Amino acid sequence: MQRQIYCLKLCEPVGEIVKVLGRIDRYVTIPTSLDNAIYNSISFCNGPLKPTKAGVVVCSKDLTYLESDYKDKTLLLVSNPRLAFIRIMEAYFQEIDYSIHPTAIIKPNVTIGENVTVDANTVIGSSGFGYEKNELGSFEKFPHIGGVIIKNNVEIGCNTCIDKGTLGNTIIKEGTKINNLVHIAHNVEIGRHCIIHAQCYIGGSVKVGDYSWIAPGAIIRDRVKIGNNVTVGMGAVVTKDVEDGKIVFGVPAR
Amino acid sequence: MQRQIYCLKLCEPVGEIVKVLGRIDRYVTIPTSLDNAIYNSISFCNGPLKPTKAGVVVCSKDLTYLESDYKDKTLLLVSNPRLAFIRIMEAYFQEIDYSIHPTAIIKPNVTIGENVTVDANTVIGSSGFGYEKNELGSFEKFPHIGGVIIKNNVEIGCNTCIDKGTLGNTIIKEGTKINNLVHIAHNVEIGRHCIIHAQCYIGGSVKVGDYSWIAPGAIIRDRVKIGNNVTVGMGAVVTKDVEDGKIVFGVPAR
Amino acid sequence: MQRQIYCLKLCEPVGEIVKVLGRIDRYVTIPTSLDNAIYNSISFCNGPLKPTKAGVVVCSKDLTYLESDYKDKTLLLVSNPRLAFIRIMEAYFQEIDYSIHPTAIIKPNVTIGENVTVDANTVIGSSGFGYEKNELGSFEKFPHIGGVIIKNNVEIGCNTCIDKGTLGNTIIKEGTKINNLVHIAHNVEIGRHCIIHAQCYIGGSVKVGDYSWIAPGAIIRDRVKIGNNVTVGMGAVVTKDVEDGKIVFGVPAR
Repeated sequence: MQRQIYCLKLCEPVGEIVKVLGRIDRYVTIPTSLDNAIYNSISFCNGPLKPTKAGVVVCSKDLTYLESDYKDKTLLLVSNPRLAFIRIMEAYFQEIDYSIHPTAIIKPNVTIGENVTVDANTVIGSSGFGYEKNELGSFEKFPHIGGVIIKNNVEIGCNTCIDKGTLGNTIIKEGTKINNLVHIAHNVEIGRHCIIHAQCYIGGSVKVGDYSWIAPGAIIRDRVKIGNNVTVGMGAVVTKDVEDGKIVFGVPAR
Repeated sequence: MQRQIYCLKLCEPVGEIVKVLGRIDRYVTIPTSLDNAIYNSISFCNGPLKPTKAGVVVCSKDLTYLESDYKDKTLLLVSNPRLAFIRIMEAYFQEIDYSIHPTAIIKPNVTIGENVTVDANTVIGSSGFGYEKNELGSFEKFPHIGGVIIKNNVEIGCNTCIDKGTLGNTIIKEGTKINNLVHIAHNVEIGRHCIIHAQCYIGGSVKVGDYSWIAPGAIIRDRVKIGNNVTVGMGAVVTKDVEDGKIVFGVPAR
Repeated sequence: MQRQIYCLKLCEPVGEIVKVLGRIDRYVTIPTSLDNAIYNSISFCNGPLKPTKAGVVVCSKDLTYLESDYKDKTLLLVSNPRLAFIRIMEAYFQEIDYSIHPTAIIKPNVTIGENVTVDANTVIGSSGFGYEKNELGSFEKFPHIGGVIIKNNVEIGCNTCIDKGTLGNTIIKEGTKINNLVHIAHNVEIGRHCIIHAQCYIGGSVKVGDYSWIAPGAIIRDRVKIGNNVTVGMGAVVTKDVEDGKIVFGVPAR
């Protein structure tokens, strides 16, 4: 993970550098946080510059600075310091590994796109939880014959469960990220570039639009429709449809 | 999964057909939802008949219909369309598989009945979470020497945990269905034909009666008694006993 | 698990016996609860003595008793009956097994101390859930290069996930106990001798002090600081820092 990189070469994968302040005769060898930095660290800072030993700091182009702030440093000013740091990390220090962990269980009728990560002990394509009470008061299971479709660039954490559809499919669209211990029930459809945080429950036949954000531990009731660009708060219990762009939270969510 | 079945033969496993409307010279080859149906599909419909291409539709005996509704279809009228459809599926298209998934962990002192399903990565018989603070303020673990008893026709999803009893047993009675990511603590007793939805927490020594329904993400506090035919709402936090037949929800549940 | 132990020899591992009442010419062979006891059981009782067939009962030194209460029993009076019973169990009937279950996944950069238990299907050192939206509205993953440090005497249940740090480490300090289905995000620091109950969500960079108690299903928001000796209630959603010694509950927690 340690490599010697010339400070201006760090800019190459960033895509845009608004300004370089300070010394340009420097090498960095390790990415660190501001707190744990040493003289040859590269680090990043979202707001005002904090005291740090890091030699190179990626900062916002809106940074207010004094000349003394960079007398022993190199500051790279960019639009989005965290995004620039991610790209520097990925280019020089740690590539992301896209793969299906060997302990993930991929059941039959599951289609998985490109650059998809499925981490440990996650189960995709398990049978949904559909029952009907019979004349004797006991439950008969609905035979699930559908599947699961996972599109490109989806990433799924550990110990998550995605059930297959009953007659159709459960679908996770392009670029959506799902964390650990999530339950996604049968026939759910999650749109593109959504964030589904840890321990969420997404009920049967729920539809979530694109670019929506479901915070940790949220519960979405069966058959609810969540629009595009929606934010669902932590631990919210969503019992009704949510329109595009809304923010809902609480029990029940409003 | 595709087979050619004569439409009146579909009635055999249903147990009761109130009326057959429309053509009886038809074969079906595939079960589908109403939306995805093709001309040789069998489908079902709980309320009023929706437009569909399905050749055979299982409907309610209370259906209000016109002659034109079945001019190119076969309608099978029954008391419970979903239950009838389940039985047709099970008889002709997809048998339910009762089995212990090879990645489920069944620890010692676990007794499992007949026709039981335990799906992937579920752990049965793990040690309960019982500790006592000692003179030094650190925790000493209660040695759990009990077991788990799973009765006939119980079905358990993926990534669920059922802890063994401390000195006695944790018991799941006949016909109860448990979904994914559920935690059932030591010494719990769940009655017959209950539904325990995904991500529920059932605390130590909780007793649940028969035919009760615990919705997703509900939390039942240690030692609480839940009666028969109780419904606990989504995300409810149940801190007090609940009498037979009650519906409770909210935080704390009322 | 059945052994023949002389009743006064039971006292040896307890550390302190305030008084022995009744017969001392007795052997016990099995630890049981008060309810399931037989004549040669050893059991324990926290409050007033309940009717039981147990030959030996570990009771509180504050027990109010009549001579008839121990005419056919041996009562061992101690400060903490449950703790004394744990020590008797551990010494004579069932040793606690400290080990990493073979199905637990320990990823690279994880350091584990002594006497640590990690139970089935738990994942330690998985990549955290950190993303940044790019110019196209899709997410780029923060490459996590940190690790996880688990100190001595930590116990972790089944199907739990502990993510590694982004640039630093996720740290679980000495003696802390973590139950099943818990999510601990990147860069979290949990203090010494805490209890983290099942299905809790501990968000990224959260700090928890020593001797704190997080009840089942609680959600602690990213970057929140929880002090020492704090109690967080069942299903609480904690969005703000909590000072030492406080009890918080509800959604949001107060």
